[in-house]
Amino acid sequence: MSMRIQEKDLPSIAILGATGVVGIECLKLLAERNYPADKISLLASPRSAGKFIEYLDEKLIVEDTNQDSFNEKNVVFISAETQVSLKYAPIAVSKGSLVIDDSSAFRMNKNVPLVVPEVNPEDIFLHQGIISIPNCTTTPLVMLIYAIEKLSKVKRLVVSTYQSVSGAGKLATEELFNQSNDWLQNREISSKIFPYPIAFSLIPQVDDFEPDGYTKEEHKMINETRKILHNPEMRITSTCVRVPVPITHCESINLELSDNLDLQSIYNALDSMTGIEVLGKNNFEEYPMPFNSSGKDPVFVGRIRKDLSCENGFSMWLASDNLRKGAALNALQIMEKAFSIKY
Amino acid sequence: MSMRIQEKDLPSIAILGATGVVGIECLKLLAERNYPADKISLLASPRSAGKFIEYLDEKLIVEDTNQDSFNEKNVVFISAETQVSLKYAPIAVSKGSLVIDDSSAFRMNKNVPLVVPEVNPEDIFLHQGIISIPNCTTTPLVMLIYAIEKLSKVKRLVVSTYQSVSGAGKLATEELFNQSNDWLQNREISSKIFPYPIAFSLIPQVDDFEPDGYTKEEHKMINETRKILHNPEMRITSTCVRVPVPITHCESINLELSDNLDLQSIYNALDSMTGIEVLGKNNFEEYPMPFNSSGKDPVFVGRIRKDLSCENGFSMWLASDNLRKGAALNALQIMEKAFSIKY
Repeated sequence: MSMRIQEKDLPSIAILGATGVVGIECLKLLAERNYPADKISLLASPRSAGKFIEYLDEKLIVEDTNQDSFNEKNVVFISAETQVSLKYAPIAVSKGSLVIDDSSAFRMNKNVPLVVPEVNPEDIFLHQGIISIPNCTTTPLVMLIYAIEKLSKVKRLVVSTYQSVSGAGKLATEELFNQSNDWLQNREISSKIFPYPIAFSLIPQVDDFEPDGYTKEEHKMINETRKILHNPEMRITSTCVRVPVPITHCESINLELSDNLDLQSIYNALDSMTGIEVLGKNNFEEYPMPFNSSGKDPVFVGRIRKDLSCENGFSMWLASDNLRKGAALNALQIMEKAFSIKY
Repeated sequence: MSMRIQEKDLPSIAILGATGVVGIECLKLLAERNYPADKISLLASPRSAGKFIEYLDEKLIVEDTNQDSFNEKNVVFISAETQVSLKYAPIAVSKGSLVIDDSSAFRMNKNVPLVVPEVNPEDIFLHQGIISIPNCTTTPLVMLIYAIEKLSKVKRLVVSTYQSVSGAGKLATEELFNQSNDWLQNREISSKIFPYPIAFSLIPQVDDFEPDGYTKEEHKMINETRKILHNPEMRITSTCVRVPVPITHCESINLELSDNLDLQSIYNALDSMTGIEVLGKNNFEEYPMPFNSSGKDPVFVGRIRKDLSCENGFSMWLASDNLRKGAALNALQIMEKAFSIKY
């Protein structure tokens, strides 16, 4: 880390959804940066207002969200229900804040940049008050594609996801643990957040269905990838599956390239990409998993191998902490770029 | 079920590996068929010899396996370590038994039929004493391909698996539950069967690695599919992943077809295939999962939709109880065909 900039120059931040899984992760990341406590406001629903959350050596109070919550805030991170983003983002913008939004509310709006700083940082500066961060499955995937496209156009992508429950929030995570415990104690299992039991099972549905039989999550991956890469024709298909894992999304990825690359070129392309770490170059038995990727910043890629079923094909596997690079870290990095912050 | 054949005409069966997950499942299936207890011998290692296993209203004793175990057995089911198959299958054959083997020991041997009775029943009668059953990920996949290929050639397949731990045996299943319990109790987790923790995580490795970066499991899926379908050129690639689920393997499947089919034709093709059940035709929210597929005989297929990323593409999702159709049921059905048994 380079020279610390003056504290007074650091933007004043509000975190709306401060008690949620992403809000908490955002605070952890700010603490890692030693961000001054007096520059951070925590906002939530009335239900959580008045709670204290530990931050560095202090306790920050959670405040109820209202029209005045955004006064003199340079940046507002929103990670809550979509309706919360729809309601408060315009208010925050009207107060002069830069909103960095984790919901799908504005992502496909043509006036809202959708940004992964390693991929399309220039889009940050086109914002009109709101910048969206991509869905937590999209972010690591576009980083991988972007790295590889420095060498060869990606002709087609087939992706299957293995998504952790924290992508569905805190109550979903509790549901996994409660159901697991009930199963192990031979008690009946009840599902409230997910449509079916998730403990010791899988649910091949993330978000609601569209009339074409895809889920919204699958459409998000496809459409957001195209928008971030400025490639509206990109051929990509995805199947999104919830797995009984608390944190870290994994993806099984098959790519067809335009050019005939060797494995070493793929390793090099991915290795030279900021934010990506390649596993298994010298030992196949090293690969990313939720077990070794959770709580870490990089997108980990492994199991990279030639696919012999098509010309110029490769298969690979990635793991990415959905609360970090998939959400809070990406949001924070956007702020850091937007305000040229180097700690 | 049609007229019961004379009990005396039913083949005499030995189950080698009777105390394993597949052996136990085999006994359950025989009990469902009311198969006479005096036609069943249970064989295992010395460690399990002397144990009793309940079967219908009786208790069957588990015997140690030796040269004489196969005398006067018409059929020997083997589901044990590969070395056990390699050691005992030739002995059983020399005694005149038909060996139906669940290991990978003989599957790719050109003198050994590899059979899914709904797909290549005619191969049963080419046996020279041993018939292999496919890997538990291969069986449901070839059923699906076979059904669709009645309408159109499958040009290419991309498969990602979500494989339950019981595919790795009883101790692996215990490891999942023990680790899950330890996690929930905040105790340290230890891994003995799997190379890394499986509870609340994923392991993108099933079986050992080959020099090309694929696992043996992935090669098995590819090679066995080609052998069963008598299509050595079939273009298929697979990524095999272990998930923290006790029973039932799932697969995310993307197919490119030669012809332009509509969704209804795919539904019809799959629906008319014995052993396959299609979910979600009228309600997208119905799809197969371990939760609703375990303990059942059919291969369940759902999430069927057009893939717009390639010409004539479809994506779908299957779930199949790996101990039933993936192992014991398929083995039993081979015996029933070989001996023309109708209960």
